[in-house]
Amino acid sequence: MEKKEIYIGIDLGGTTIKMGLISDKGELLEQLEIPTRTKEGYQTIIEDIVQHSKKLVSETGFEWENVKGMGIGIPGLLDIESGIVRMAPNLHWTDIPIKQILEEKLQILVQIENDGNIAALGETWMGAGKGYKHVVMATIGTGIGAGIIVNGQILHGKSGMAAELGHIPISDKGIVCGCGNVGCLETVSSATGIIRMAQEVVKNRKNSLLTERFEGKLDQITAKSVFDAAKEKDKEAVAIVEEAAHLLGKALATVANLFDPEIIIIGGGVSKAGVILFDPIREAFYQYGLKNIVKNVQVVPATLGNTAGMIGAAALFHV
Amino acid sequence: MEKKEIYIGIDLGGTTIKMGLISDKGELLEQLEIPTRTKEGYQTIIEDIVQHSKKLVSETGFEWENVKGMGIGIPGLLDIESGIVRMAPNLHWTDIPIKQILEEKLQILVQIENDGNIAALGETWMGAGKGYKHVVMATIGTGIGAGIIVNGQILHGKSGMAAELGHIPISDKGIVCGCGNVGCLETVSSATGIIRMAQEVVKNRKNSLLTERFEGKLDQITAKSVFDAAKEKDKEAVAIVEEAAHLLGKALATVANLFDPEIIIIGGGVSKAGVILFDPIREAFYQYGLKNIVKNVQVVPATLGNTAGMIGAAALFHV
Repeated sequence: MEKKEIYIGIDLGGTTIKMGLISDKGELLEQLEIPTRTKEGYQTIIEDIVQHSKKLVSETGFEWENVKGMGIGIPGLLDIESGIVRMAPNLHWTDIPIKQILEEKLQILVQIENDGNIAALGETWMGAGKGYKHVVMATIGTGIGAGIIVNGQILHGKSGMAAELGHIPISDKGIVCGCGNVGCLETVSSATGIIRMAQEVVKNRKNSLLTERFEGKLDQITAKSVFDAAKEKDKEAVAIVEEAAHLLGKALATVANLFDPEIIIIGGGVSKAGVILFDPIREAFYQYGLKNIVKNVQVVPATLGNTAGMIGAAALFHV
Repeated sequence: MEKKEIYIGIDLGGTTIKMGLISDKGELLEQLEIPTRTKEGYQTIIEDIVQHSKKLVSETGFEWENVKGMGIGIPGLLDIESGIVRMAPNLHWTDIPIKQILEEKLQILVQIENDGNIAALGETWMGAGKGYKHVVMATIGTGIGAGIIVNGQILHGKSGMAAELGHIPISDKGIVCGCGNVGCLETVSSATGIIRMAQEVVKNRKNSLLTERFEGKLDQITAKSVFDAAKEKDKEAVAIVEEAAHLLGKALATVANLFDPEIIIIGGGVSKAGVILFDPIREAFYQYGLKNIVKNVQVVPATLGNTAGMIGAAALFHV
């Protein structure tokens, strides 16, 4: 046991911190989840990571010497080389040198990376993208994130902001995005976009299960409730899902034409909807993509689920 | 002189072959241009390259031993590692092992690369992209080509087909593209797209300099004639240029959101139009791009002109 190399992979979210112990083969040996105490400041969060890392290692029967590194996926704008979190709105962090602080406290190598990139890296190491070197992963949740792997490496761009799939200008519905622009992909194809369309159906009292179920309860509509109604063949719900999926498929065709990837992986809560979502995504993808590029590209669901972040964070030491 | 290292850079087009002698500092020391004898088969073209390479070197006072490599930019689908031209419609070539043939005949290293990538590499080495590592170059001619440099390296994707900017689905005009899809960028923003819009103006006898000049002579309209009329403030011509430029700027915003580049370079015949083209491109680019990404990205014209291909082909030995 003593000579085994293990890694700590951390998915640092605004609500919870997922921490995993990962073998050099990518196995998730043990995991724990703690709340992110954002209100108590960054020192508290970092101290929580320190204490629980040690606990995770010792309670699993490893020695601290077995730990070869800690990777952390963080939602925000990062300076990856120096390990500084420049701006993480969900954590209320600005200019926090987390790498340096943790390396001093733990005496191990620490690497940080954008959470979208980490998920893509995790799926490429151990999930749906295993064995591939050119991978696009889109994560569909409240917004739309992405991570792009080129030749086995994360695509960062000049300032670590590459792969902003959610903000490509592609919709003509005229909806203003959180970023200030109009027509971004995530105004339509994210959970937020799907919920907005469902609310319109209810507000306009269209003949739909959505209206039956949510009249007067607009704020209770979730993406899942729209998919549920669509699975019951509700016409309005089906139209919403198809609109969101069609635009996502078209956007992914654009991405494929630019990157010539081997595989496209779709993760995030919305991706659990299954064929009702994937069929129209694929239809648009193969319709709009350049045939010679997309003919051999599969569009598949992510397989690691909530563990992609932890595994991807550990994968930072494997690429 | 004897120890000087030089490279032969070749821009192998369907009409002409441009051959240059390039120093290891990227200077174009000498060049010549010969017609591409496509009708006489690949052996003739390759023999032309062999003979003129030797002539170029000897007449410039170098020894063949000074030549450290030959790079060739080729329009088509290539197998870069093995140096085989899989399909080059302009040359009428299929499965030609040009690298192997030339290496045997010339006894120097030969590398081949897609022509769009070569232009991007040339501009990055010695032109508008000098000093940058994250570069997007779009070439606007009959179609729209592109080359994308990530971390100083050409982006190839899984099969060398990356950077198909001309075929991203972005127009809602419903024009069928040569690739078979509808709405590709190049149906609107290429020279072909611009000419098509001008022909519509003339066919509909709209009040325009274009109608005055080209009624009954539709096939004489060039992109330049549209830009000329636009510079004379012809309303219809201005509208055409703005439509083509707007869509290109929007497409480049999409590219920027995905790649987070340092600079965007626009080359090709159409790019010579100047501010009348670049102003509306930039307007759309900064409007549709994610602010944090595009705020520091310049959109500039290419500076190497016709020599980008030769210089970029030589640059294959410098990256």
